[in-house]
Amino acid sequence: MDIAILLYDHLTALDAIGPYETLSRMPGATVTFVAAEPGPKRTDNGRLALVADATFADLPHPEIIVIPGGPVEGLPMRDEPTLDWIRTAHESSQWTTSVCTGALILGSAGLLDGVRATSHWRALDILRSLGAEVADERVVFDGRIVTAAGVSAGIDMGLTLAARIAGDETAQAIQLGIEYDPQPPFDCGSPAKAPKAIVDLLLALRDEGAERAAAPVTS
Amino acid sequence: MDIAILLYDHLTALDAIGPYETLSRMPGATVTFVAAEPGPKRTDNGRLALVADATFADLPHPEIIVIPGGPVEGLPMRDEPTLDWIRTAHESSQWTTSVCTGALILGSAGLLDGVRATSHWRALDILRSLGAEVADERVVFDGRIVTAAGVSAGIDMGLTLAARIAGDETAQAIQLGIEYDPQPPFDCGSPAKAPKAIVDLLLALRDEGAERAAAPVTS
Repeated sequence: MDIAILLYDHLTALDAIGPYETLSRMPGATVTFVAAEPGPKRTDNGRLALVADATFADLPHPEIIVIPGGPVEGLPMRDEPTLDWIRTAHESSQWTTSVCTGALILGSAGLLDGVRATSHWRALDILRSLGAEVADERVVFDGRIVTAAGVSAGIDMGLTLAARIAGDETAQAIQLGIEYDPQPPFDCGSPAKAPKAIVDLLLALRDEGAERAAAPVTS
Repeated sequence: MDIAILLYDHLTALDAIGPYETLSRMPGATVTFVAAEPGPKRTDNGRLALVADATFADLPHPEIIVIPGGPVEGLPMRDEPTLDWIRTAHESSQWTTSVCTGALILGSAGLLDGVRATSHWRALDILRSLGAEVADERVVFDGRIVTAAGVSAGIDMGLTLAARIAGDETAQAIQLGIEYDPQPPFDCGSPAKAPKAIVDLLLALRDEGAERAAAPVTS
């Protein structure tokens, strides 16, 4: 089973690595990182490069597509080669998935019109403007389109999808293998749980991060 | 604050990305991926390369060291340049950390003698043989040495350490930023919770993965 994970400059690494670390452990799965041009792609803060081994032309028809997100200003929402590849791949894919603001890329490709979907909690208004029926849930299935909430939700999405594809037992074994017995130090991982002061602090930190993401990429 | 994350061929990606995605969001943090030789390092299944931008000589004295793990047979436990860098960096580091079997590398460098530490649940016997006082907990602090359990535990470790360094509010904002409100589809992420049949199935899957990890790396 071919799984293609999109890479592009300014992506958020964990958006891609959560699905990768879970889905790649299914028996028979082959993950390939793809991009418009092969080679290293720098993450949102510029401090890490992940390497795309293949071009879009190398993998026109993967069984699973994974679209990771990143800061909105760095998303390839108007990059026609990327959107064309997504549209073509989606015609024959078994599962078309996104993590975080990757859903905005799916929406820009025209795939989410009337589709129940989610994204990072800060991006739900944009998601709605792209035609999606916003579902404020962590992992949302609508037919063969699967969207996950922000960043870390890609782990839950990957395990949930692995269970659909390979069965509950295999997904449970994968969860045990990555020792995913989460014990977050705080209970504030969603805006419904976090105090307003924490939301405000995050916005300040994110604005700083956005400035970094807008800096030139030299990879 | 300089944070150096070790890369090497056959590492497990999420081991490195969990701490990266959390610690890099602290104000003033600068993360650099380091290796004996710069360039792409292939992960355990060979399907992804992460790029090391710096050599050990470029970062002899980071404030934080992060040692990710991977399948035991691929760990640089006898690689003297790696062990020397860890020993030297640890002399002046504020925090020396590991995720998963990264603790076995710390132990091989002689840093865990009599130290309370943890690792992936399958590696605890080896960890003990390296002199550590094994603590079967998800994140273990002993002085300035911090070790995390398997793979995904690096997210919890990163957030817990961020709270120590930058304060609870900043760590909470980081947790909200990565929307870390985990909802695993199963409650089997540790051997204490998983049925024996799932443990057995994992061992079969892991053996297959170990064969992949032992294959030649061409990066």
